[in-house]
Amino acid sequence: MIKGANYIGDELSAKGDKTFTTFNPQANKVTGWTFHEATKSEIDAAVLLASEAFNQYKKISGKLKAQFLRTIADEIEALGDALIHTYIKESGLPIGRAQGERGRTIGQLKAFAKLLEEGSWVEATIDAAKPDRVPLPKVDMRKMLFPVGPVAIFGASNFPFAFSTAGGDTASALAAGCPVIVKSHPMHAGTGELVAFAITLAAKKTGMPKGVFSNLNSSGNEVGQQLVLHPNIKAVGFTGSFNGGMALYKLANERPEPIPVFAEMGSVNPVVVLPSALNEKGIDWAKQYAASIMLGAGQFCTNPGLIFGIKSTSLDNFIKTLGTEIATLEPNCMLHPNIHGNYEKGKEALSIQGGVNVVADYESEVQPNYARQKVVTVNGTNFLKNSKLHQEVFGPFSVIVRCEDATELSTILKALEGQLTGTILGSEDELRKYENVVEALKSRVGRLIFNGVPTGVEVCPSMQHGGPFPASTDSRFTSVGESAIKRWVRPISFQNWPQEFLPDALKNSNPLGIMRLVDSKNTKSAI
Amino acid sequence: MIKGANYIGDELSAKGDKTFTTFNPQANKVTGWTFHEATKSEIDAAVLLASEAFNQYKKISGKLKAQFLRTIADEIEALGDALIHTYIKESGLPIGRAQGERGRTIGQLKAFAKLLEEGSWVEATIDAAKPDRVPLPKVDMRKMLFPVGPVAIFGASNFPFAFSTAGGDTASALAAGCPVIVKSHPMHAGTGELVAFAITLAAKKTGMPKGVFSNLNSSGNEVGQQLVLHPNIKAVGFTGSFNGGMALYKLANERPEPIPVFAEMGSVNPVVVLPSALNEKGIDWAKQYAASIMLGAGQFCTNPGLIFGIKSTSLDNFIKTLGTEIATLEPNCMLHPNIHGNYEKGKEALSIQGGVNVVADYESEVQPNYARQKVVTVNGTNFLKNSKLHQEVFGPFSVIVRCEDATELSTILKALEGQLTGTILGSEDELRKYENVVEALKSRVGRLIFNGVPTGVEVCPSMQHGGPFPASTDSRFTSVGESAIKRWVRPISFQNWPQEFLPDALKNSNPLGIMRLVDSKNTKSAI
Repeated sequence: MIKGANYIGDELSAKGDKTFTTFNPQANKVTGWTFHEATKSEIDAAVLLASEAFNQYKKISGKLKAQFLRTIADEIEALGDALIHTYIKESGLPIGRAQGERGRTIGQLKAFAKLLEEGSWVEATIDAAKPDRVPLPKVDMRKMLFPVGPVAIFGASNFPFAFSTAGGDTASALAAGCPVIVKSHPMHAGTGELVAFAITLAAKKTGMPKGVFSNLNSSGNEVGQQLVLHPNIKAVGFTGSFNGGMALYKLANERPEPIPVFAEMGSVNPVVVLPSALNEKGIDWAKQYAASIMLGAGQFCTNPGLIFGIKSTSLDNFIKTLGTEIATLEPNCMLHPNIHGNYEKGKEALSIQGGVNVVADYESEVQPNYARQKVVTVNGTNFLKNSKLHQEVFGPFSVIVRCEDATELSTILKALEGQLTGTILGSEDELRKYENVVEALKSRVGRLIFNGVPTGVEVCPSMQHGGPFPASTDSRFTSVGESAIKRWVRPISFQNWPQEFLPDALKNSNPLGIMRLVDSKNTKSAI
Repeated sequence: MIKGANYIGDELSAKGDKTFTTFNPQANKVTGWTFHEATKSEIDAAVLLASEAFNQYKKISGKLKAQFLRTIADEIEALGDALIHTYIKESGLPIGRAQGERGRTIGQLKAFAKLLEEGSWVEATIDAAKPDRVPLPKVDMRKMLFPVGPVAIFGASNFPFAFSTAGGDTASALAAGCPVIVKSHPMHAGTGELVAFAITLAAKKTGMPKGVFSNLNSSGNEVGQQLVLHPNIKAVGFTGSFNGGMALYKLANERPEPIPVFAEMGSVNPVVVLPSALNEKGIDWAKQYAASIMLGAGQFCTNPGLIFGIKSTSLDNFIKTLGTEIATLEPNCMLHPNIHGNYEKGKEALSIQGGVNVVADYESEVQPNYARQKVVTVNGTNFLKNSKLHQEVFGPFSVIVRCEDATELSTILKALEGQLTGTILGSEDELRKYENVVEALKSRVGRLIFNGVPTGVEVCPSMQHGGPFPASTDSRFTSVGESAIKRWVRPISFQNWPQEFLPDALKNSNPLGIMRLVDSKNTKSAI
């Protein structure tokens, strides 16, 4: 069923001579599927189609776009086991994860459909005219959000469904009214092609304009670069490495017309274990964190890579238990030999830094591409002066930092790079006692967690998945949850515009029945 | 009363040897006031104070911040005629404008105070826990907006009050909870110092932390560059030229930690005069536009610099009347000899382009620094192929483009650079008939105006003052109106955070009584 071709709108296209294959990390051999890289002319064709599609797609009602998103969800489900097996083959992830992630992806599509059906997300704002105002009459002014145009989405290696072809970036951009061109992740191009088939079919079934979606294959950087540099592309979504994200960010900023790049570039997700958590629940937390570090072979952007405690016997016990616990867990298969290779290199590079001691290091032989977990410890002074120790090692690896006291802990947290999440384990009293620690952590993260693990990202309106740089290129936006739609829109005001020609969201009668800000009051009433 | 010193927090400081003076363009001589440029150590001191102030200021309630903003407004008023006279002396603008702009500035401060008192602007969003959800329990998640930290604001030449020291950028940043460091505009450094005095006094009277505001003098680029590059500065606001804005934008993007720059860089504000407007009201519109072009010596970012019509006798009549009318109006004094010099150069550079014909050119002798208005015309073909004709000439200058037909008009509008505003003059029927023209214009602007002039920017929640690049560096935000506060904040989520330690906006009891999104429903109810 997998053709190894690009989708240029609803047409399969394989004009390029350059090909690549995907890899089965569990079997440690190629999948046998070969993919044609998109050529320059195929990229141009996809962008041209997207631009033409935008002229129609931007005018389509929220209800109809919702139907499109729901049909994508249905068509993904309709692919059934064939899709699940392709996912497993190309990622090495277990069936439960594949099914769970498919459920999440479908859930995301439906959540955006619901948002569109409700309709208030456009932030309709109306200020009525006051012709009698002195010294000057007040004009009639109305504002709402409009889609920016075709966007380029880069699939992520570690979420072949939820952050890839029909993932949160695509779902939110299509919901916003923007055509989407996906640069498929080369590690799971087959999974991507099947999902692209589902989207294309859904677009046809719901009468969406041709070119509202395209899917391009590529194993190198050129296709992505050409996409980002194309003048008709108006925004970029990316989830992946710091180097990859920054390359696109710089490219986009150097365009004659700079465009926003929403890159989520990972995080070490600091966890602060306060004394009460060590004293009263240290063993429990050690076990929970051993499991959290190992989850999905540590291949989550919210993996807890950095744990802080204040020196004490109970911290020693916590570290010891975490080490013992994690050593008993079975290593998992990583996504790709390259990712496994980078993991081994990253682990080694951090382990040889000054003052680093090994807590646990899984040394038994494992199958190829399996990630052997490792936990190390270092004191606060060494950590503070060596920024290499702050770097993310993508995989089941964690650094435990032993701080002298709360002051050193605050100092370290303040000096930390921006992060997606920060976690506090402790009692409520300690939130007061360690206020400076909490404030320091808050200033560096997008999401604060109390007595939990950072892995597991709830898809809901209150989720912030995006932190200060370098966790994200733009900490004002989230890539998970309904607010992710705000990345693909800009406000336009209408001054003294005739009723009939205003968008429905701004008409006096409020035909969509949405919540609006009218003369600074929230209301669903007509005017 | 003017000391020529910087305000580093509430202290006057004049450590630098480098000085400059301001200029009275009406009298065509220096004002006699001398200003000390901020030194590197003064800049560092201001940023350090701002960072320390932020630790306290970010925790201050909306009601108290509102009191601070209202007191700034009072203290500006208390400066009375001394302030007005300084403004006039340093800008050459008339007293009515000075008083009007002061009123607007005070109005802006009070509008943000009202926004803070009401409190819903923080976008509080709550999703309740569902411990029984299968397959996984749902955590408690809550999100709201928090200030990003100290921000640098660059005063604009053309609005010594409303877009400078205590202008919309400063008011919105202080409202958001961010300390502000103003890089005062060198053309009205005295006005800036007086306003800085008012802000500093208001900060003291309302118990704001020292360093919540500083004001730095500089006639060159170094002070601004050092500010933007300082690691503790977290965002930048700028209103001015394309070159100035882009220099700061690039600098900010090249920092180890890039920060957002909200630069509003001007616009030529295209106006489309459709046939009915030409036929039925051509003479009226010609008179109104002559006045709009001349307003404030054309020194507005919303000045109508570009007017489009479809070739016809009535277009010829419109052009002729506009030319005759504008020739009868008295030239006005510009802000500074440099601005006047640039105006003369810009006017000349555009006038010598191929196919340009002069409609009106005020040639009588005028006082020094007075702007002699000029209107030229060119056909669509010449305009389309020569991007020099698209450039802003800051002053009372306008280009009228004579298009062959609606198709050429649409083509030109689509090819136009991003603009702050776009105006349609015509009938409602024509909005239907010329739908492609309207859509093309909409895609290039932040604000659409029907049957009006673009000058006059209402300060209200539905105002969008910010358009696609190069009108602004970030078209998703506005620099005028209450939404301007959104530039200085980022969302933070709290997962399973204890009630007592949540910000008031996120507590179950809703002690602030604000509108919140609770489980996807807008409500002011407690949980």
